Amino acid sequence: MKRPTIHDVAAAAGVSRGTVSRLLNGDRYVSPAARSAIEQAISETGYVVNRAARSLVTQRTGTIVMVLSEPHEKLFEDPNYSTLIRVAIRRLAERDLSLVMMLSGDEGDRERVVRYVRGGHADGVLLVSTHAGDPLVSALGSVTPAVSCGAVIGRESVIPYATADDRLGARQMAEYLVGQGRRRIAMITGPMDTPGGIQRLEGFADVLGRKASSKLVAHGDWTQASGERAMTELLERSPDLDAVFVASDLMAAGALTTLRAAGRSVPDDVAVGGFDDSSVATSTLPPLTTVRQPLAEMANRTMDLLLALIDGAEQVEPVILPTELVIRESA
Amino acid sequence: MKRPTIHDVAAAAGVSRGTVSRLLNGDRYVSPAARSAIEQAISETGYVVNRAARSLVTQRTGTIVMVLSEPHEKLFEDPNYSTLIRVAIRRLAERDLSLVMMLSGDEGDRERVVRYVRGGHADGVLLVSTHAGDPLVSALGSVTPAVSCGAVIGRESVIPYATADDRLGARQMAEYLVGQGRRRIAMITGPMDTPGGIQRLEGFADVLGRKASSKLVAHGDWTQASGERAMTELLERSPDLDAVFVASDLMAAGALTTLRAAGRSVPDDVAVGGFDDSSVATSTLPPLTTVRQPLAEMANRTMDLLLALIDGAEQVEPVILPTELVIRESA
Repeated sequence: MKRPTIHDVAAAAGVSRGTVSRLLNGDRYVSPAARSAIEQAISETGYVVNRAARSLVTQRTGTIVMVLSEPHEKLFEDPNYSTLIRVAIRRLAERDLSLVMMLSGDEGDRERVVRYVRGGHADGVLLVSTHAGDPLVSALGSVTPAVSCGAVIGRESVIPYATADDRLGARQMAEYLVGQGRRRIAMITGPMDTPGGIQRLEGFADVLGRKASSKLVAHGDWTQASGERAMTELLERSPDLDAVFVASDLMAAGALTTLRAAGRSVPDDVAVGGFDDSSVATSTLPPLTTVRQPLAEMANRTMDLLLALIDGAEQVEPVILPTELVIRESA
Repeated sequence: MKRPTIHDVAAAAGVSRGTVSRLLNGDRYVSPAARSAIEQAISETGYVVNRAARSLVTQRTGTIVMVLSEPHEKLFEDPNYSTLIRVAIRRLAERDLSLVMMLSGDEGDRERVVRYVRGGHADGVLLVSTHAGDPLVSALGSVTPAVSCGAVIGRESVIPYATADDRLGARQMAEYLVGQGRRRIAMITGPMDTPGGIQRLEGFADVLGRKASSKLVAHGDWTQASGERAMTELLERSPDLDAVFVASDLMAAGALTTLRAAGRSVPDDVAVGGFDDSSVATSTLPPLTTVRQPLAEMANRTMDLLLALIDGAEQVEPVILPTELVIRESA
């Protein structure tokens, strides 16, 4: 049987070939009537788009790929991703662009992501939680516009990003804990190959200076379980600590579990400060005093950068947004 | 500047043109040495794959698209999706296939999903939580192999699926509650345009018969909030109820919140039975007596069906897996 062509579709829909191709190319200015007539004609004729011919004309796929460089469990554990995806989908939908998500948790995943992007399946890349030195960044090269929500360490000049001022936020929390009369203030950091890991520790050290001894610093990997482990480590090393600044609300929730098990009351014995002001912060007992990063705005500004590049902007500037202290009951 | 060709890549990598094209076509039988040489050559030459020419040859994209027909919030709230995605990624990785995820929460999303699949971006479609009458199913037509994790109501003969025996599971729970001497047993169902919604109610009615009066049945939408609302409704309608079977663990968690607020102790005043045996079941207070559906196996069997179709199987048979009662403390 002869394979149906775009001419067959146009004929069946009673519209011009040009209208069909405009619709197929993601042009939103096609009347609803024409759109449904064409969709029906496509179903009837069983027409399959020849992306080849099409993308050679438009050079567009109508798709943006979000690449999360973490094991998939984190996608579900961390509510920040939910906000980011909601914003990305809404902003792309306004342009009738699709968001597809890929996870790049290991070497094989990464190869497939690179092949996907190099294969011409996406008009742009949205990087999330990309760690320093991730080969993905160089492998993608300049094939297609790429931005990151949060900076990619070492690639700040190559990959445009929008981020919260992590260092400022950490200083705000450290100053607050000091102001509350806490004397032995510990910290649980994020991974030291992420900006949130490094800069939140820097802000903490800006305020505590020499007091930020390595005995009082433990490292987590952003997961709740790692917050539990790091808190256990700190209690062994410095049983007399009276406060802990945890670099994410989720890790702080883990730290609270450990403190409860150790019979330390929060905030009386130990004050606990988080970071993010995500939904986790209000679901813990006690609710977390934390640093608010404007995640929805970060996501929106990141999408602004990506859309500008897709529209042909030669260069875009990184965006750094202020944080604010949110006082609840844990500190 | 002349655009680099696959010949330039082969030359730079010191391999044959055929080897380069095998790698680009997702053939896993390319030596690691050749693979890295080619990846590097691609970076150096800045070669961009001409998917056109390529897909005309292979008719393969190396990508499977998972379409979740729900608002994105549910992806994060329901732990079942985490299991499904983990299994799908692992099974596809074994074949060096990529999983991309798309959400189809509204009309615009659906149009973009259809355009994406018709656009030839995917070798197969994995449907998740597709509701009865979703136009997506017919719009996708027979463009590419599609399967569903859980049946698509009204399309059971068109879309192969693997599912748990929802009706059996509901009977197991209803019989257990009756056996515990409960006399006024209510039910909170899922949406009545999903198999889990319909068949879990049918199983409940199989056992309770006439006693399953509409006064004792309320409907939820799988979210925790809907479980809270439905429980409130039931307590108003039938204050004397002494048990409730909730069609998902997440909705059961919502029901527990309402019962606590109403001063009803569980299980003494009201026995609560869930469905899924997801991670939620062990995180509630008290832990949920529930019906275990073998989700990881459902996901694996669904992937078996999809991979068989992609490999050219003419037809595959649906898979229905048994459930089992898991007794904890809530009933």
